[in-house]
Amino acid sequence: MEVEHDTVSLGEFEFECGETIPDLEIEYEAYGEFTGDNAVLVCHALTGSAHVAGTHRSDTGGQARAWWDDIVGAGKAVDTTEYYVVCANVPGSCYGSTGPASENPETGEPYGTDFPPVTVGDWTEAQRALLDELGVPHLHAVVGGSVGGMNVLEWATRHPDHVERIVPIAAAARLDTQCLAIDAVARRAITTDEDWNGGDYYGEDRPNPKDGLALARQLGHVMYLSKASMERKFGRRAAGRDAVRSFPADPAANFFPYRDVESYLDYQAEKFVERFDANSYLYLTRAMDNYDLSSGFESDADALAAFEGEALVMSFTGDWHFTTQQAESLADSLRSADVEAAHHVVDSDHGHDAFLVEPDHVGPPVADFLEAGVAGNAVTDTAGDEEEGESDFAPVHTSLFS
Amino acid sequence: MEVEHDTVSLGEFEFECGETIPDLEIEYEAYGEFTGDNAVLVCHALTGSAHVAGTHRSDTGGQARAWWDDIVGAGKAVDTTEYYVVCANVPGSCYGSTGPASENPETGEPYGTDFPPVTVGDWTEAQRALLDELGVPHLHAVVGGSVGGMNVLEWATRHPDHVERIVPIAAAARLDTQCLAIDAVARRAITTDEDWNGGDYYGEDRPNPKDGLALARQLGHVMYLSKASMERKFGRRAAGRDAVRSFPADPAANFFPYRDVESYLDYQAEKFVERFDANSYLYLTRAMDNYDLSSGFESDADALAAFEGEALVMSFTGDWHFTTQQAESLADSLRSADVEAAHHVVDSDHGHDAFLVEPDHVGPPVADFLEAGVAGNAVTDTAGDEEEGESDFAPVHTSLFS
Repeated sequence: MEVEHDTVSLGEFEFECGETIPDLEIEYEAYGEFTGDNAVLVCHALTGSAHVAGTHRSDTGGQARAWWDDIVGAGKAVDTTEYYVVCANVPGSCYGSTGPASENPETGEPYGTDFPPVTVGDWTEAQRALLDELGVPHLHAVVGGSVGGMNVLEWATRHPDHVERIVPIAAAARLDTQCLAIDAVARRAITTDEDWNGGDYYGEDRPNPKDGLALARQLGHVMYLSKASMERKFGRRAAGRDAVRSFPADPAANFFPYRDVESYLDYQAEKFVERFDANSYLYLTRAMDNYDLSSGFESDADALAAFEGEALVMSFTGDWHFTTQQAESLADSLRSADVEAAHHVVDSDHGHDAFLVEPDHVGPPVADFLEAGVAGNAVTDTAGDEEEGESDFAPVHTSLFS
Repeated sequence: MEVEHDTVSLGEFEFECGETIPDLEIEYEAYGEFTGDNAVLVCHALTGSAHVAGTHRSDTGGQARAWWDDIVGAGKAVDTTEYYVVCANVPGSCYGSTGPASENPETGEPYGTDFPPVTVGDWTEAQRALLDELGVPHLHAVVGGSVGGMNVLEWATRHPDHVERIVPIAAAARLDTQCLAIDAVARRAITTDEDWNGGDYYGEDRPNPKDGLALARQLGHVMYLSKASMERKFGRRAAGRDAVRSFPADPAANFFPYRDVESYLDYQAEKFVERFDANSYLYLTRAMDNYDLSSGFESDADALAAFEGEALVMSFTGDWHFTTQQAESLADSLRSADVEAAHHVVDSDHGHDAFLVEPDHVGPPVADFLEAGVAGNAVTDTAGDEEEGESDFAPVHTSLFS
């Protein structure tokens, strides 16, 4: 697989908030060969990076492996022998693109919380500018999961003429109130960590706000799993005898089992705080929370009205972070905007993580949609179900308890 | 309404863990007149107190009002002109009964985390001992919501001959994995707060671990509401202009709205940290997490086998903290144990809070069950529905998304 892995300087960049930074750097990976009409942009999720596929890197920023290697690659659903696939780390992140942990050239110090607030719109404009640098005026498709799916929608809104096909996966036009609340608590866990220090914790002499970031991550993991998948994976089992509590506990805790689910959360958090920047977590969750497809428009459909391509909306029945109902509402808006759209529902109790861990069910519809649009073989649509009075996305499947 | 409000000393108390304290004090309230066969014990939820009804107290421990005043009182569902109603603050809490914040008579200092780990079994034995003091050998009924419903079940297991009727409301035989996980994160928020100081934060010279306790409480509120109720109450609206952020935030936060849902969580947390003890929160959530009806038995049904009274299980369709499925499973176990049992499902999108905020739907079945058992007029049962091939508790209602 032919791979480019590089960082480009985009020069001065003005954010949606009106603030500018003197130089926005974007780290990206690109796979395959650009033939003029085969470019596919992949948008990563909250804590993802440009390293979407392949095993060519050793400096993976702490990620164990490429985040969508099951989907992107030679002969895979997003086939890098056919498509020129680009994935870029978003501004505000900490995986090579400019963010709070990056050095402010004007001060020689990390930006910290002087970094401008970022939005999904800013991500989109940075990707547009990167593609200009790469000589890619037009995209065959934009594909992305979770907040990466919001990024996909923003492409259809901001650059409708530059995209043929969009694939928002496990995404929505906006986050619901419950998830806004959990994200707000997660940010408070970071900003109340004394080591956060108002965002100024960089440098050898200061500890990172690991506890706060760990808690935020643990709340993330709860959102990424479903009731059913947590029950199946962990139940109420005690952790193995080798498991060691990595968080402080009161002595009375020793009377009770250290449970498998706690051990899982603690382990995930411990890995995460080594690889992720706490300020980036604040910035990126805020971008996600603030995203609203209809913002500046009359409605979601109005926001999508200028897009004349095709859309594949994908959702997962066990996902309560981004529900199938939200996906169906998005599909309805696309249909109202006269977009050729299909809503493909995958029956899975893996929760939100399904878009990452169910490649056998995600791959075929994505592959067929990239090739043939909504007429693609493996693509199903809820619209047909509804006409028959039945629906794959009925709440019976989308329950937390399925 | 005749009210007793007192604290009794039960002397040396041995906890389930084997540890003892020299004197367990229990604060209780009692309403009405004991006639020999009309005693009803009400069990409070996690952060509740003995102050279940009435307006007779000014020292309410920071509670704005009695926690179940809509249900308990003269002429109300649990009618204090008919029943002698007792509610006791559980050991480990901070509303008058002995807990971590109480003085250890052996040291003259607060127990802190030297307080023995408490279990729902300990609560039950303390209530049993209190009732002995009050001269109440036998209960007409035990009623309770949330973890108070677990407390109810423990009565049927430990003292099956002392209770005629049990009413576990919005409860379950055990907490599910997802809620175990959220509680674990909540405890970590407390124990990673530097002011927690290993549990030793009492005294004038030390600050309370307010931030950690606030985060824990905010997670609680997310669990107590449903997706639908949060959407309806707050949506994505910005908080009013007078709203003031009470948590630290990064400067970039100012570009984004301070949302109504955040303002709600911050306000609730601010009130809570004034009234509740952080160590108590650790102890009581652990008691809840650890509760398992089947513990020490072959099965849930086996645990209930000695109980020969009647049971009214109540659940709420929008409750994801304790789901209708869990309640139905509990009702099944009761039926298997040959207990006369009804599972009354209330259609409500108020989430777990429904047992507190839906008195019009909770009151009638409780009143009729206390009077006439499962044959009571307003009592419905899912068993009948099932025979007709339909069910009130079908997942379509119990979805988070209803």
